[in-house]
Amino acid sequence: MENIKRGLLIIISGPSGVGKGTIRKEIMDDETLNLAYSVSMTTRKIRDGEIDGKDYYFVSNEEFDRNIKEDNLLEWAEFVGNKYGTLKSEIERLRNLGKNVLLEIEVNGTKQVLQKCQGDDVLSIFLIPPSLEELENRIRARSTESEEAIQKRLAKAEKELKMQGDYKYVVLNDDRHRAANEIKTIIRQNIVKN
Amino acid sequence: MENIKRGLLIIISGPSGVGKGTIRKEIMDDETLNLAYSVSMTTRKIRDGEIDGKDYYFVSNEEFDRNIKEDNLLEWAEFVGNKYGTLKSEIERLRNLGKNVLLEIEVNGTKQVLQKCQGDDVLSIFLIPPSLEELENRIRARSTESEEAIQKRLAKAEKELKMQGDYKYVVLNDDRHRAANEIKTIIRQNIVKN
Repeated sequence: MENIKRGLLIIISGPSGVGKGTIRKEIMDDETLNLAYSVSMTTRKIRDGEIDGKDYYFVSNEEFDRNIKEDNLLEWAEFVGNKYGTLKSEIERLRNLGKNVLLEIEVNGTKQVLQKCQGDDVLSIFLIPPSLEELENRIRARSTESEEAIQKRLAKAEKELKMQGDYKYVVLNDDRHRAANEIKTIIRQNIVKN
Repeated sequence: MENIKRGLLIIISGPSGVGKGTIRKEIMDDETLNLAYSVSMTTRKIRDGEIDGKDYYFVSNEEFDRNIKEDNLLEWAEFVGNKYGTLKSEIERLRNLGKNVLLEIEVNGTKQVLQKCQGDDVLSIFLIPPSLEELENRIRARSTESEEAIQKRLAKAEKELKMQGDYKYVVLNDDRHRAANEIKTIIRQNIVKN
């Protein structure tokens, strides 16, 4: 009888502005990879067009804090006054269903996941920009932030780039189709059925 | 600061034909109860109009067996060659999100849940028909089965009715609106915020 393993946990991370979201969407479109996207929990207000349970799980601050206290989160972080995190039960459910679970998270979040999932089947992928200058161009192009906020973001990105050694794979995002295809190949090679 | 408890686990059970599904739908419509329906996993084929992840999680037999082996199921059972079960991670996720989770399951499934969730906040509700004759009428009215299958179902129902002592509440389904309202009141009284 065929023996089926539970799904992989795949992390796509990298500095702010490197293009994680775009690449993630392109990879998710490939149905042969049997991927499921892990929906994050957040305390931020729901925006027009967003769907609770699809874009995020929108919860109150009290609800979020209870989950921190009960150790229900695989990773979490706070940005501009809002908390964002990944429920262990969300990952567990999707892996139980045999899906390969895709997490698109910040560098700091990955650190927490790797600490908690030692020895587990975690496929960690770090996206890097062609250069720091190119990253700066991308951040400026899509930003409506103040110069000060942009400078902060850049300094953080530079620091985050140094964390790439913690990842199993480092992928250059020179072209999003090429990079997405490289990641698809990596995922395919890691989907092992015993 | 307000301290928030995780959601309740609510089981609605009772013999075949007693009207669990109808009552469940009526209760789910009450948004003030903050309910979420636990989606079951099954090996049966998806039917026209059904949505994977909404009606059921449709999985292969191998996937289901892996979950049995890994002890990922809160309860499961086999009917006419298909397996049906509840993932622990599904319940966990919904309770983490602060939802009161509604499980509509068979009597045998409840037994498994109550054994595994001792001391946990489980609200178990057993639906009973006005009489065995009335149950027989209902089963016959909606059945396309053979006389033999109906007799089997009735014998099983009679046996299941004897399990009502295991439940916290027994509710008479004489009228679905009345019964649904009674259950809503029970749930409301059990939603405790410390």
